[in-house]
Parts: sequence; C-alpha cells; structure tokens
Amino acid sequence: MEIPFTKMHGLGNNYIYIDLFSIQLHESWFSPIAKAVANVNTGIGSDGLIIIHPSKNANLGMRIFNRDGSEGQSCGNGLRCTARYAYDHFIVDDANFTIETRAGIVQAHIKENVNGIGDITINMGKPLLLRKDIPMIGKGDDVVIGEDFTLDEEKVKITALFMGNPNAVIFVDDLQNVPLAKWGPLIEGDPRFPNRVNVEFVEIVNEREIKVAVWERGSGATQACGTGACAAVVASVMNGHIGRNQQIDVHLPGGKLQISWSGSNDVWMTGPATYIAKGTFTFDM
Amino acid sequence: MEIPFTKMHGLGNNYIYIDLFSIQLHESWFSPIAKAVANVNTGIGSDGLIIIHPSKNANLGMRIFNRDGSEGQSCGNGLRCTARYAYDHFIVDDANFTIETRAGIVQAHIKENVNGIGDITINMGKPLLLRKDIPMIGKGDDVVIGEDFTLDEEKVKITALFMGNPNAVIFVDDLQNVPLAKWGPLIEGDPRFPNRVNVEFVEIVNEREIKVAVWERGSGATQACGTGACAAVVASVMNGHIGRNQQIDVHLPGGKLQISWSGSNDVWMTGPATYIAKGTFTFDM
Repeated sequence: MEIPFTKMHGLGNNYIYIDLFSIQLHESWFSPIAKAVANVNTGIGSDGLIIIHPSKNANLGMRIFNRDGSEGQSCGNGLRCTARYAYDHFIVDDANFTIETRAGIVQAHIKENVNGIGDITINMGKPLLLRKDIPMIGKGDDVVIGEDFTLDEEKVKITALFMGNPNAVIFVDDLQNVPLAKWGPLIEGDPRFPNRVNVEFVEIVNEREIKVAVWERGSGATQACGTGACAAVVASVMNGHIGRNQQIDVHLPGGKLQISWSGSNDVWMTGPATYIAKGTFTFDM
Repeated sequence: MEIPFTKMHGLGNNYIYIDLFSIQLHESWFSPIAKAVANVNTGIGSDGLIIIHPSKNANLGMRIFNRDGSEGQSCGNGLRCTARYAYDHFIVDDANFTIETRAGIVQAHIKENVNGIGDITINMGKPLLLRKDIPMIGKGDDVVIGEDFTLDEEKVKITALFMGNPNAVIFVDDLQNVPLAKWGPLIEGDPRFPNRVNVEFVEIVNEREIKVAVWERGSGATQACGTGACAAVVASVMNGHIGRNQQIDVHLPGGKLQISWSGSNDVWMTGPATYIAKGTFTFDM
C-alpha cells in the first residue's frame, strides 16, 4: 500500500512523519514501518519514524520509533518538527499548544516572523539533579558537580544529571581536541552509570555562548541532540559558567539551538524545524 | 521550490529519479540537487540522483550524479530502475527500447508477468579484455587471466577487464573469509591500475551460480554493483569456471542478478527494480 509521509529535520536529526489526523494506521504497523522507511538503501532513509496522533490529554500526541523499530521516549528535534507540522497543517490554530509524548506532556510555542514561521520553542521539562535519579553510582554528594572521574589513564571532572535520559557533562578548553570516539563509548559504558549515559563535551565560549559535542547512548556521535544541549546548559549553570534565565546560544555540529534554564524549573529550547520532502511510500506487511 | 521525485532501488542501490519528460529543470541544478537530496540528514537520502530525459539518439536518456555531485558514466542498477520507470510512466510503449547514457546507448527489455512487471533486462555492452584498455600495467599477456599479483604478504591471481570501468576479479574458495575491507582498498589503489579499479571476489558455487562481493572504486564495499557482477561473470567464463551463453545466477549481498555472456559479444543483465517513494522535495539554490 501507499502511505502518505512528510520528512523533516531539526539540525540534521531527521524523521519520517506520519499524520494520523489525516490517515488511519494500526499501531502494530508502526515498528515495522519504522524499520522499513529508515533504511536508506531500500526505504526513504531517516533516523526513525514519528507518528503524530490525536490525544485525549493534549492538543496532539507524538510517538517516536528508532531505526531498529524500538519505541523511544521523546526527542527535542522531533518535538520541534512535530510542533511545526501541527501548526502548518491546522492540527492546532493557537501558537501555544501541548504535545503528549511517552516522557510526558510538553508545551510548544511557534514564533511567526515576517517570512512565515520562524523558530519553535519547546518546554523540555525539569532536569533531575539527584545522584539516585540520574542514576550514577558513587559516594560523593547528592548532586554530581565536577566530580573526579578516572577514565583510562586520564582524569576528568563530570557533572551529571537526568534530562529525559542520563547525561554526563565534561567541560573542556578546546572542543576540537576531544577524543569523542574514544571517550564517548568509555563513559557511556562505565559501570558507574547503570543505565548507561549520554556524554556531552562542552566548551564555554562566553557567558551567552557554548559549544557542545554529544555522544548519544546507543547512537554514538550525532549532529545535534536536543536533550544533550539542554543538559549542557544545565550543567554550565550548575558550575557557574553561565547565568540563569538567559538565552544561551548552543553550537552543535548540526547547527545552533537557544536554551535557557532558571536554575530550578523547566528548560526551554528554541530552534529550527525544516521540511525536506513529502509524498507517499510503498509498504507491504 | 518543490521538485517532483521518485525514489527507487535495484538490490538496495538507490537513487532519486527526476523525470524531465514531465518537468523542466536547468542542467546547472543537477549537481547541487544530487548533493542535497543524497544527504540523509538534511535531504531524502540516496546513493545519488538520476535524471531521466528526452534523447535525440535513443528512446530516452539517463544521467547519473553521485553523492558528491560528480557525474557518473552509467550504473546497471540505475538502468533497470530507469527502464522500469520509463515503461510504467508511458515514456515508452514497447517492451524493447533504448536508453542513452554517457557510456553509450544500451538496450532495455521489460518482462511482464501475471502480477504486472517482472524483471528488467539490460544490455550492459561488451567487455574490453586487452590490458591497455583496462588499463593495467604489466609485462604479461595482452589478456589478463589469472595473473600472479603480490598483495601485502599474500599472493593472489587476478583476472582483469574493462566493463564500464576497470575491474579486477579474484576467485576464492570461501567468500565469507575474504578480508574485503583490507584487500579492496589495497588493490583499488595499486599503482598497476593507473585509473584505480573495482575489485570483485568470486566464489564459484556451480556451473550456473556464483557468489560475488564487490569493492567499488571510490565507494568501498557495496550491496550490489551491476557492472561488478557482469565483470565477475565475464572473468568466470574467461577462466572456464562457467559456460558461455548461459543465464548465471549471481548472488550479491543485496540480492540476485542473472547475467549471461557469449564470450565475445554484449553482456546481458536481468534483475529487479523497486519503487520506494514518490512526492516532492524542497530545494533552494
């Protein structure tokens, strides 16, 4: 059968979007479709599949499926694209609305500029700072700020927090010299992180600007990880490198996000969402 | 602007197809579009772009652009998809027709079965067997059959020929034990092949069946290389491993092709062509 789709990306993080406000599809198909469409050789090619669907608890709902067909919790870049799609396709008509995900309900805000839609702002929720919530094994303080961490032969300082998933943040002087492909998997798989961990290397440019390289749990080095960028800002505030309640420019390999955190409440992320293609794909169960 | 496209694959070798029988597009756009659409992160994702266009010398023409925007000569898998597209979209109405490529004009034949279109047969042209035409530097015979070739510390025997591009074929007892990622680049870059070379490792299953692993010049290990499969059959005939004028089943990682060679004339390749998706993509120069 032919299934209507839209492909969108947020800073290069790309998904096939299927809109269940306009077509019906049984949920047993979501996982096999994700595997089929994500394969660039025999399918369209993507990081996975996002299903946009009606919700009883929010203006709309979103479910995300990875390349391997497994279901994910949420995704910052995917949320921005979902929000933009919903606004453009009249699923919502107010610029402020809510999206239900498996990780909870988030608020979205669409900013229109003179050329049409501009950036999209998403409430990414509250970070959990306690060691037991990350979780991270250790005997230090309840909050993990700049904790010594022996890695191979090197010593680094880790600030850790839970931001949708476990995150370990390491500040460096020069991001270009970080051995991401070596340290990333070492920290991700370290037994001190029983649920594994996303790793962010952060270079502070100034009080309003940071550079971040992310090693994603299960995915490796990625172009842009929304939750990783949020975790980097939270950790930067915790260490006093940047201020609270300020829009911080976060430079990722795939582009720029703007992120702010009050120091106690939700993290807000602002960034682009871009259409790539739309049409129909062929799928047979 | 929004540009109509179709994505198809032949044994996993996938391209975005643009049909210039139905839309107009200046040729200065082909290369930038290829780079944009081939990128899976910010575009659709593909091995490249194929332009199907009117031709004065054949029923239709095809131009192929690689991921990096460079123009290629031809592509067996792409030719089958082009042929199927042309037949399905009434660009041709006879099941036998011609396609112009930068490597010359080829004949195509569509086989219809009870379920609609079946496999597509393409005339892949005549192999060039002379050492100077491959080209391969050496002092041996004019035709390169089972020539000793020192590789690292190992000795192998190479049969070489030109089949759309230079090919070096090595027969092995067990394809699974071949160090493709090690030997492939070593042979590809060997100074004895001044234009570099595609490398095929071939296991003879029986007189009607061979298994082939291909290392493609500039691309590395690929799922299915049409010209590489043809070169493998030609080399197998040259060495007397299989017969002339027989349909040989060639098993590649991406699937099966059927190939026959008379021993002197054109090589014929038969295989599938599969639709993935169609629609429009967004592109701005």
